Amino acid sequence: MTQTTDPHARLRELGLSLPSPPVALASYVPTVTVPLGDGRVQVSVSGQVAMRDGAPLHRGSVPDQVSLDDAVENARACALNLLAQLEQAVGLQNVERITQVTVYVRSADGFDRQPQVANGVSDLLADVLGERGRHTRAAVGVNALPLGVPVEASLTAVARPRA
Amino acid sequence: MTQTTDPHARLRELGLSLPSPPVALASYVPTVTVPLGDGRVQVSVSGQVAMRDGAPLHRGSVPDQVSLDDAVENARACALNLLAQLEQAVGLQNVERITQVTVYVRSADGFDRQPQVANGVSDLLADVLGERGRHTRAAVGVNALPLGVPVEASLTAVARPRA
Amino acid sequence: MTQTTDPHARLRELGLSLPSPPVALASYVPTVTVPLGDGRVQVSVSGQVAMRDGAPLHRGSVPDQVSLDDAVENARACALNLLAQLEQAVGLQNVERITQVTVYVRSADGFDRQPQVANGVSDLLADVLGERGRHTRAAVGVNALPLGVPVEASLTAVARPRA
Repeated sequence: MTQTTDPHARLRELGLSLPSPPVALASYVPTVTVPLGDGRVQVSVSGQVAMRDGAPLHRGSVPDQVSLDDAVENARACALNLLAQLEQAVGLQNVERITQVTVYVRSADGFDRQPQVANGVSDLLADVLGERGRHTRAAVGVNALPLGVPVEASLTAVARPRA
Repeated sequence: MTQTTDPHARLRELGLSLPSPPVALASYVPTVTVPLGDGRVQVSVSGQVAMRDGAPLHRGSVPDQVSLDDAVENARACALNLLAQLEQAVGLQNVERITQVTVYVRSADGFDRQPQVANGVSDLLADVLGERGRHTRAAVGVNALPLGVPVEASLTAVARPRA
Repeated sequence: MTQTTDPHARLRELGLSLPSPPVALASYVPTVTVPLGDGRVQVSVSGQVAMRDGAPLHRGSVPDQVSLDDAVENARACALNLLAQLEQAVGLQNVERITQVTVYVRSADGFDRQPQVANGVSDLLADVLGERGRHTRAAVGVNALPLGVPVEASLTAVARPRA
């Protein structure tokens, strides 16, 4: 994998554009940025889900109600929202490293391929940010998620502050 | 939301008092505080559940066994425990920012209103700590939690060390 | 608990040896190490599961398909993998503190003893690393995990960089 030097150019190469970062409608916020000791910052991003026109892109558990392919597409949409939040908080070009990603996959009881779904998140982060987008990950199954969505993903990153 | 300057005064205004911070009874501990580079510290708080007189405040999944209202009340009790742990670890007045909160809601399979339950945690943290209490959040459903409780919540924060 | 000065000696005393750290086979990586401001580093370790000869050590939910005892054994194997990852990333002797551990236990709907399973992780970390291994923890139940395993565990730690 080559180091991506311009994540915005890479998004264009991939034929992708960032959505408007979803607004958090409660006492929580989409991102929190706190200083580390040497001028860099740690950024946390709230759990993101995939919406379209104000409704969930998909609803249901994988694979009985949402197919594996649709779940991967959904996971990619979550990743685009994560990137949109990072863009708004610090600017993608200032991200030094995605540190941790947690991917929750709404799963039928017997389903055990959460890693394939979560790769929809991981692959897109690495495609756009290169080595800086390669992260640690926990991918787990859950029986229920907000709005009935099949995937929710959150992350932490380290960045230079926006110049 | 106005900036709360004294979280203890704010707790009194809300008619709340902090419980004794629950003791962890195993090889894990309620809080870990590690230095950041510039004299500040990062505080992690273990997953908190709501107990009363040594037994769970509620038991069961939401909403079939525990109502949505009771789940929100339970979430607020978890938040009070989180605050009690922060008070003991660093003192609430030294908290600079709650960074990340994870709320696990024990959910019946069809339940999709985890955000409303999690707002019981988020709203109380913001009520007591003001802007400093506004955090990123992941709210997810799970099919089982320790002791059968309906809600478990953990967090990380950044603080000045206790003077 | 006495402070362990040499975690490798402690592993030998316990009759344990570290496995080869599992390789992540996707766009994510087993560990990410980022500098803190004062020469120390934060290490994140991806969710670890217990494998033997390329297959899951156990498969199923606790306690109906995997007994409580087997789940604890499985959790200890996850902890050994976490330690193996830390050894490879920074060296166990350089770990200053395990900060946060999350343990996901694949649970039958009525199961509420996730803490006992998670103690398999927590006890081993504390046995090997002493006070430095005592961490904050969230232990939760889930209905499904990758490869059908009963336990997945991830962590973050603070370390001195490898000399």
